[in-house]
Amino acid sequence: MNRLFYQPHQAGLSKVEAAADTLRFINPDVIIESYNMNITKVENFPLFMEKIRTGNKNNSGHVDLVLSCVDNFGARMTINTACNELDQTWMESGVSENAVSGHIQLIVPGKTACFACAPPLILASNIDESTLKREGVCAASLPTTMGIVAGFLVQNTLKYLLKFGRISNYIGYNALDDHFLILTLKPNEDCDDSYCRKRQLEHQLHPVVIEENVPTINTEVVHESNEWGNYIL
Amino acid sequence: MNRLFYQPHQAGLSKVEAAADTLRFINPDVIIESYNMNITKVENFPLFMEKIRTGNKNNSGHVDLVLSCVDNFGARMTINTACNELDQTWMESGVSENAVSGHIQLIVPGKTACFACAPPLILASNIDESTLKREGVCAASLPTTMGIVAGFLVQNTLKYLLKFGRISNYIGYNALDDHFLILTLKPNEDCDDSYCRKRQLEHQLHPVVIEENVPTINTEVVHESNEWGNYIL
Repeated sequence: MNRLFYQPHQAGLSKVEAAADTLRFINPDVIIESYNMNITKVENFPLFMEKIRTGNKNNSGHVDLVLSCVDNFGARMTINTACNELDQTWMESGVSENAVSGHIQLIVPGKTACFACAPPLILASNIDESTLKREGVCAASLPTTMGIVAGFLVQNTLKYLLKFGRISNYIGYNALDDHFLILTLKPNEDCDDSYCRKRQLEHQLHPVVIEENVPTINTEVVHESNEWGNYIL
Repeated sequence: MNRLFYQPHQAGLSKVEAAADTLRFINPDVIIESYNMNITKVENFPLFMEKIRTGNKNNSGHVDLVLSCVDNFGARMTINTACNELDQTWMESGVSENAVSGHIQLIVPGKTACFACAPPLILASNIDESTLKREGVCAASLPTTMGIVAGFLVQNTLKYLLKFGRISNYIGYNALDDHFLILTLKPNEDCDDSYCRKRQLEHQLHPVVIEENVPTINTEVVHESNEWGNYIL
């Protein structure tokens, strides 16, 4: 979220601490714990796992949800590994380097595809992503795409935690032509992650159900009626 | 944008002045002029028209674009009337009162439907909207929907001003089931607004062309490649 979240007066702070400060300023009633560490380092993995496993409000059990807002493949795979092992539901998000497309994805271990279920070329080819040269990347462009994708991520989070509406498994967004892709991704029974395969077997025996609460009334009519009514934006 | 933009320390300021202060804080290089007035009052209409007609960077001609972020039908109709008369391109936006749907709409007088082209029931019935009682409205709910709709509005604005991608005429968003509606709305030749009908005739003689710049390469492949690559969010 570097292009959305930081302000000039925060120069010198770590990104983690600056983000925590901003969140506390926006809502002082939320308890923010920050950890400035590289989760892909082996020595940090146990603490990362521990915080997912015991980081709820009373420090007595799993967190409700993990949101992934990282910027590289390795960090995503680390989160995926931890969440598969812990059977922790999480949401992944990302914006492409050229900033004109992005996605969010809900991952319920065993129920939906995990991040390793569909191995990208970079993994199959055993290429170190840090060695890849990328053309035409302008890191200063289009915070709007990130704002929209972050909006989808938080909207899906609210629906999941507060149990309203239909929670999307995958939303893809292409900004150039305003194309939206809504998908359901099934897990791969040959997934490389053994915990993913284990969760799939568990899910077959005891399916994970996500509550949906979409009104059965004709929402199209309600929508049109409101479109021309009294707006609050 | 009341639920997104204001902070406790701004209590006592007018909404217009608080918003201007926040925008100046975010980007001091942008010149912000604020006018705290009700644009639907007859006595304020000439100044509103004047600012659209002469409010460009050198105060010598039309502004590039008008963005409508108002919260009622009357104010939308006022903007529509002014922009039809001045032949000014604008974008309308809104979120329904229950905050689970919203839209943005590009209005190019004579080329696309104006706000009066499809008269809503409230207009046809001659009802004063301020007398309408609304059930089930919770003004504290779901700033996420507003964030996403505002993201669409700014994204479409950047595409229009910077001439990239395909500019959408209408994007509808239903948050409950993540349904996206992309439409092109033609003007109504029987529109009540005489300037709209005049602009339609002008458009038939000299069509207004909006530049589009969508790469002809297979964007799907680029998209997939980036989805798994190095992210910046």
